[in-house]
Amino acid sequence: MNEQEKERLDQQFDFFREIDREKFIGRQTYLSDGMRKENDAEHAWHMAIMTLVLSEYANEKIDVLRTISMLLIHDLVEIDAGDTYAYDEEGKKTQAERERKAADRIYGILPEEQGRKLYELWLEFEERKTPEAKFARVMDNIQPIMLNAATDGKAWKEHGVKLSQILGRNAHTADGSKLLWEYAREYFINPNLEEGRIQDDREE
Amino acid sequence: MNEQEKERLDQQFDFFREIDREKFIGRQTYLSDGMRKENDAEHAWHMAIMTLVLSEYANEKIDVLRTISMLLIHDLVEIDAGDTYAYDEEGKKTQAERERKAADRIYGILPEEQGRKLYELWLEFEERKTPEAKFARVMDNIQPIMLNAATDGKAWKEHGVKLSQILGRNAHTADGSKLLWEYAREYFINPNLEEGRIQDDREE
Repeated sequence: MNEQEKERLDQQFDFFREIDREKFIGRQTYLSDGMRKENDAEHAWHMAIMTLVLSEYANEKIDVLRTISMLLIHDLVEIDAGDTYAYDEEGKKTQAERERKAADRIYGILPEEQGRKLYELWLEFEERKTPEAKFARVMDNIQPIMLNAATDGKAWKEHGVKLSQILGRNAHTADGSKLLWEYAREYFINPNLEEGRIQDDREE
Repeated sequence: MNEQEKERLDQQFDFFREIDREKFIGRQTYLSDGMRKENDAEHAWHMAIMTLVLSEYANEKIDVLRTISMLLIHDLVEIDAGDTYAYDEEGKKTQAERERKAADRIYGILPEEQGRKLYELWLEFEERKTPEAKFARVMDNIQPIMLNAATDGKAWKEHGVKLSQILGRNAHTADGSKLLWEYAREYFINPNLEEGRIQDDREE
């Protein structure tokens, strides 16, 4: 191994040690046993496997590796910026700026061309314009809905989540996969609405 | 959504709910803060990102999606079979049989052709013959070595791990990546050997 190779590997492993901290970033979703909340690394792993299995339902054909890569790395910004809960309206005001700074720092640990590639992948996710970003968003929204349903709406109840909030957050989910949104609506959201675990704020 | 689509989606989401349990399977490696041990899902996520960044060092060209897929799903068998610690000689005697049964059950939850595909990917990892399986093994071995080194050998010290055990477990690591094995040996293993955190059982 020459000096240049050593330096490159040092940067890459610095990055791997840094991102270990994603395992400490807690989310609001309970795991299926309803006892412990999940962290960002677990969430990313779960969505990556879901993408492997569910890519057939993307509205437009997707590059699976690109989509999985996006899902694996997009939450790294939360190492600096923290997790902003889906329904935290105050936190969301400063979220974009906090996350942009974090992306600069964290992807910047890598050798330059690799860092730039991951930064661009993160931006692509944020901008949700490509078929891959749209599908990745479906995973990012449906994975916690599935777990919330599996725990009888525990996190929804704790936060007093309203139907309008869920529908607002999922305004573009059908853009990535019409069928998956239909399934989530019918089998995860509606039953919990009927049980009163999601607050029904529709006008009569 | 017709009945057939609904049934297929039910099987896929049954699988996703089942694999949530991988987040409860503890490993022996401490996270970088040295306080908590990591679980299988966190480990898989970490290795998947490492593969994205390090695939350039594979001895033979690898299909990155195939390698990442293998790493994401190969530990699911531990949901039934448990984690067998790298240096647990008793546990390793029954490991293959326990894991084979687990693979049958867990991948079998999916629609048949998808379950078969993941089962075969798991077998490919186990047999470590393809370039992808060989490289995946490098990740599976080097990720915990990196974390052990980052925590001043905490898990090595707790288990009284000997150099011969590490070298035995890594007898084939260089088959997947000569350079990564060289780097791990020189910058993760040797310094901890010198510090006495890995037991030096070489004959004088």
